[in-house]
Amino acid sequence: MTDFAATKAMFDLPEGILYLDGNSLGPLPSAAKARVQGMMADEWGDMLITGWNKAGWMGMPMDLGNRIGKLIGAEPDSVVVGDTLSIKVYQAVASALELNPGRKVVLSDNGNFPTDLYMVEGLLRSLGPEYELRVVDPEAVTDNISEEIAVLMLTEVDYRTGRKHDMKALTELAHANGVLTVWDLAHSAGAIPVDLSRCNADFAVGCTYKYLNGGPGAPAFIYVAPPLADKARPALSGWLGHEAPFAFDLGYRPGAGIERMRVGTPPVIQMTALAVAMDVWDLADMADVRAKSIELTELFIREVEAACPELELASPRDAEMRGSQVSFRFADGYAAMQALIACGVIGDFRAPDIMRFGFTPLYIDEGDVSRAVDILAEVMRNRLWDKPEYKIRQRVT
Amino acid sequence: MTDFAATKAMFDLPEGILYLDGNSLGPLPSAAKARVQGMMADEWGDMLITGWNKAGWMGMPMDLGNRIGKLIGAEPDSVVVGDTLSIKVYQAVASALELNPGRKVVLSDNGNFPTDLYMVEGLLRSLGPEYELRVVDPEAVTDNISEEIAVLMLTEVDYRTGRKHDMKALTELAHANGVLTVWDLAHSAGAIPVDLSRCNADFAVGCTYKYLNGGPGAPAFIYVAPPLADKARPALSGWLGHEAPFAFDLGYRPGAGIERMRVGTPPVIQMTALAVAMDVWDLADMADVRAKSIELTELFIREVEAACPELELASPRDAEMRGSQVSFRFADGYAAMQALIACGVIGDFRAPDIMRFGFTPLYIDEGDVSRAVDILAEVMRNRLWDKPEYKIRQRVT
Repeated sequence: MTDFAATKAMFDLPEGILYLDGNSLGPLPSAAKARVQGMMADEWGDMLITGWNKAGWMGMPMDLGNRIGKLIGAEPDSVVVGDTLSIKVYQAVASALELNPGRKVVLSDNGNFPTDLYMVEGLLRSLGPEYELRVVDPEAVTDNISEEIAVLMLTEVDYRTGRKHDMKALTELAHANGVLTVWDLAHSAGAIPVDLSRCNADFAVGCTYKYLNGGPGAPAFIYVAPPLADKARPALSGWLGHEAPFAFDLGYRPGAGIERMRVGTPPVIQMTALAVAMDVWDLADMADVRAKSIELTELFIREVEAACPELELASPRDAEMRGSQVSFRFADGYAAMQALIACGVIGDFRAPDIMRFGFTPLYIDEGDVSRAVDILAEVMRNRLWDKPEYKIRQRVT
Repeated sequence: MTDFAATKAMFDLPEGILYLDGNSLGPLPSAAKARVQGMMADEWGDMLITGWNKAGWMGMPMDLGNRIGKLIGAEPDSVVVGDTLSIKVYQAVASALELNPGRKVVLSDNGNFPTDLYMVEGLLRSLGPEYELRVVDPEAVTDNISEEIAVLMLTEVDYRTGRKHDMKALTELAHANGVLTVWDLAHSAGAIPVDLSRCNADFAVGCTYKYLNGGPGAPAFIYVAPPLADKARPALSGWLGHEAPFAFDLGYRPGAGIERMRVGTPPVIQMTALAVAMDVWDLADMADVRAKSIELTELFIREVEAACPELELASPRDAEMRGSQVSFRFADGYAAMQALIACGVIGDFRAPDIMRFGFTPLYIDEGDVSRAVDILAEVMRNRLWDKPEYKIRQRVT
């Protein structure tokens, strides 16, 4: 059984703040400061260029990939860390398209995070006018999977509402139609159990600064199913994905398996912070995290609906249908969220009217949830965002 | 006049090491440890998600771009930081090709760093079989510039030999033939004076972990000439290059000017270290750095040639024709370099036979150069790499 009091003690959480935005940026693991300081002094400072080998920097993208892989049901050596999520989406979709020649349509939904759509828009423009990005409502995805589609690209958990797609069922349907899948796990990795291997997912990508707590701008990750890994062409064919990066050949030869998805020099300082964040996960069981997350979100929904009748639940009511966040719609949501933040409860706002709250059992407990609801209720009851007192509070916070 | 004793004092340089590999990875600026520690505790730790605005994280790619821009003769707001050099090469060449429709050939040379060639190889494969990457000898570049060429992509300073292309003359010739230019400044930025504006360069890219001392995996930068910036299509069209990233529109609209070359969430911890490294440059005048670099390289060549007759100069003898490094050819170069490193002089080796030494006046002085040559001479004279003592030394170093 995961000891959540122990994991909570592993984070620096600022006094007087209730943080329900770990789905945007996870908090600071306490040990990260000293570890990064040590890496800078003892590795960068003392080893200089030799740190790439002596300190193991060159192997960090694979090491971290394997640690993340355990949380998402990936096979050993099928995940590598690097770049940003946008870049990894580009690589995954470009490779998937090339593995499915003859088909020209990428299917996605309008609940996908926009950068995924933007990156594919740019990719398809490079590939030529015969390619199409088809964006449908989330509920219409199933009906639009057909033998015309090359790639199905979906974010498993909707960034606004937390609605969760059924990865296993959709992947099966996709495969039955000869469609390859690219799953974005931005709001899944560390949030809900994911089993890429059991779902037969083809490609997956994700970021590490949300539920994984890797820090602002921590690198992304990419998964390629082992049977595809040696066939996938890395459209972004950088030297660290080369079979022999230090041979300095003039022509590109992709490296073995997932290593070919490496591109350029990886961010060692960021990866050091991420490694500390992954240490916390060594103490957590993902099934426990999910069970606790459901308790926290159910409690939050129940208490908010009792105390704040103005707020309309935007997330699925059925816990099985959502990720680890809860969103409410409210016309003055932006102003209300600013007031709430000024009162010490940090959630966030997503246009046009979504107040979004993330639940992260590693460092949020029932007491935090109830206290957050009390403050939210006070903000709503008094329409604090309209009051001069709010402006005073905002200044001193 | 730049006070190089003062700039040297701003770095943590390990006791007993002579570091002639700052052209691979610059050393640790002393202030970086505390600054990164402070950023982690006071910004990530205390501000959490609000750090993106409160701590100015979102503006760092442009702030750092402008600071780097001053060292390379870029106009204000024409440089932005992010991703890796490989990714920035891809963006620059993809944009340049699209600005020169009708032409299908990218011209480069075999002295270019391989990842630049690999990335373009991948790009052209996406664009279609009518595109060609033409790679010629460095000396043949001029003769190959013609109205058939769309883009001329060159690394200004050869990573192996330090040979320097004439950016102004080649850009002029390119423009006279209707060719757009992409300059890789990996071995130029912080090494030699660069004046992108005066040279009328179209695109430039570079990294920040070599002469700029930003740390292992520090982000890259990209320059787009202001007249092109609003026309260039960012092939890697990520959300932070969108005109309104937080509107979460489903369709991509490129941001104004260079901001469109941003892709995903930038690495805040790495950028914090880079910002400290740029503080050192505030004390340095690039003309002084160049003058001192020439003194150091001339001294090194003179002393090595006097003491090590086995080594054959691979760099241009004329200082005006090379960057801030000196390379020697030696058949046993790999083993000799290992022995030299074991004796405390860090340079590096590039296949097949290049022993490479970087000269960085911010923290290397004449005394360091002479001491390094004394040790190199001892290694060569005694063929230390063949001796058992060397193996002992290697273990204890």
